[in-house]
Amino acid sequence: MKRPKILVTNDDGVSAPGILHLTAIAKNYGDVIVVAPNKPQSGMGHAITINSTLHLQKTNYHHVAEEYACSGTPVDCVKMAINHLLPEKPDLIVSGINHGSNSSINVIYSGTMSAAVEGALEGCSSIGFSLCDYSHEADFEASTPFIKKIIEYALQHPLPQGTCFNVNIPKLPLHLISGIKVVRQAKANWVERFDERQDPYGRSYYWLTGEFINFEPEASDTDEAALKAGYVSVVPTQVDLTAHAFIATCKTKLEQ
Amino acid sequence: MKRPKILVTNDDGVSAPGILHLTAIAKNYGDVIVVAPNKPQSGMGHAITINSTLHLQKTNYHHVAEEYACSGTPVDCVKMAINHLLPEKPDLIVSGINHGSNSSINVIYSGTMSAAVEGALEGCSSIGFSLCDYSHEADFEASTPFIKKIIEYALQHPLPQGTCFNVNIPKLPLHLISGIKVVRQAKANWVERFDERQDPYGRSYYWLTGEFINFEPEASDTDEAALKAGYVSVVPTQVDLTAHAFIATCKTKLEQ
Repeated sequence: MKRPKILVTNDDGVSAPGILHLTAIAKNYGDVIVVAPNKPQSGMGHAITINSTLHLQKTNYHHVAEEYACSGTPVDCVKMAINHLLPEKPDLIVSGINHGSNSSINVIYSGTMSAAVEGALEGCSSIGFSLCDYSHEADFEASTPFIKKIIEYALQHPLPQGTCFNVNIPKLPLHLISGIKVVRQAKANWVERFDERQDPYGRSYYWLTGEFINFEPEASDTDEAALKAGYVSVVPTQVDLTAHAFIATCKTKLEQ
Repeated sequence: MKRPKILVTNDDGVSAPGILHLTAIAKNYGDVIVVAPNKPQSGMGHAITINSTLHLQKTNYHHVAEEYACSGTPVDCVKMAINHLLPEKPDLIVSGINHGSNSSINVIYSGTMSAAVEGALEGCSSIGFSLCDYSHEADFEASTPFIKKIIEYALQHPLPQGTCFNVNIPKLPLHLISGIKVVRQAKANWVERFDERQDPYGRSYYWLTGEFINFEPEASDTDEAALKAGYVSVVPTQVDLTAHAFIATCKTKLEQ
């Protein structure tokens, strides 16, 4: 039987500890190609590079047959892999392991998840993995059995067209992780505070900082609730942004 | 009665013809503040600036009391305006007029729409406007009565929490525009082709190019269908990316 082809990408850069761990797991399941950004691309959302050029460089961090650092965003990496580097679509795309949570509303800011969403748009089973630990020294070991289980599921049951998984792993030792919960995206947002500073020439500049607010802390069927209870959260994710229920309301007024 | 406060932004940059036209319209309805990127930010999606600093510069393109060029992305501009510059949330956020379509799947790549989505996330009525004409010399005049009607609607009926409008205007003279249709996001995608070239030193580089594919050309209730029939399309847009229908399917296998 032909081994599955697995594309690995991320947003923290091709040599980040999280992607090294993910590639090591993915190798158990198929032939791996790595195409990942040549520099950190956190917070890039679904950005693509249309006003400048893209560059590819072969790398040697992952010890796989094909691995590249790309000058673009995570979404560029997926497009490059599928439409330029690979002769046919991969059987699976895995993105991450992100250093930090991509639960709830973070799905739209996250380069890791945007790569998975782009994979789904291109018709591939895709999964974004994130560990709720922002540290570069984060311990990815406890996540291994859950990542394996979810990869095995996706290889056996290709996800529906246009759908990917947003997987978040709590920052806990293995014996304290309760299992996996399939849940929905919690309603939440960031409340920003701009940290204003002065440069050496007296001009103001700003750092974006913020506080995460869960608007539904009582709900039990969300990714936030699952993570809080010590579960790995899996949110099936798609990209129809239509507010279907609101179409009828504004139709009469706007179409008249 | 207090005049509404209206925030104007875009992704083509603070001095683009589209935003000048939109500000001129917005002035009829309230006190306008402009916070827009200091350079083109097309295709930036929901990117935010977290690995570098942000800078603001006063400008004088719009002849309003407050206008700024921001070094960041369209989403940064909205966050800066709401959380740093304005003492309270604006009554309305308008983004655009984009030079080019943001219908269908383009909503996730578009900086114009990401600014509107961010406004909705921050709890403000928000609208993204795009004209289906990529030219810098595009004629925005025909769009005026439709933009006015939609702004008037949103000021009279604030959109539901977390919801914004994605408005696309066909490239037609006024007498050929059929009216407004409230529709859903068409299922579509881009098929990319990377245009490979050689730099003067013999190294390859790439330009991202692509062809738009509508997966449901027969459907009549989509933004693509409305635009093709000569209508202004309005898609109520929100950011729950959960594939709700798929939760039950994978729950049994993954949670066991």
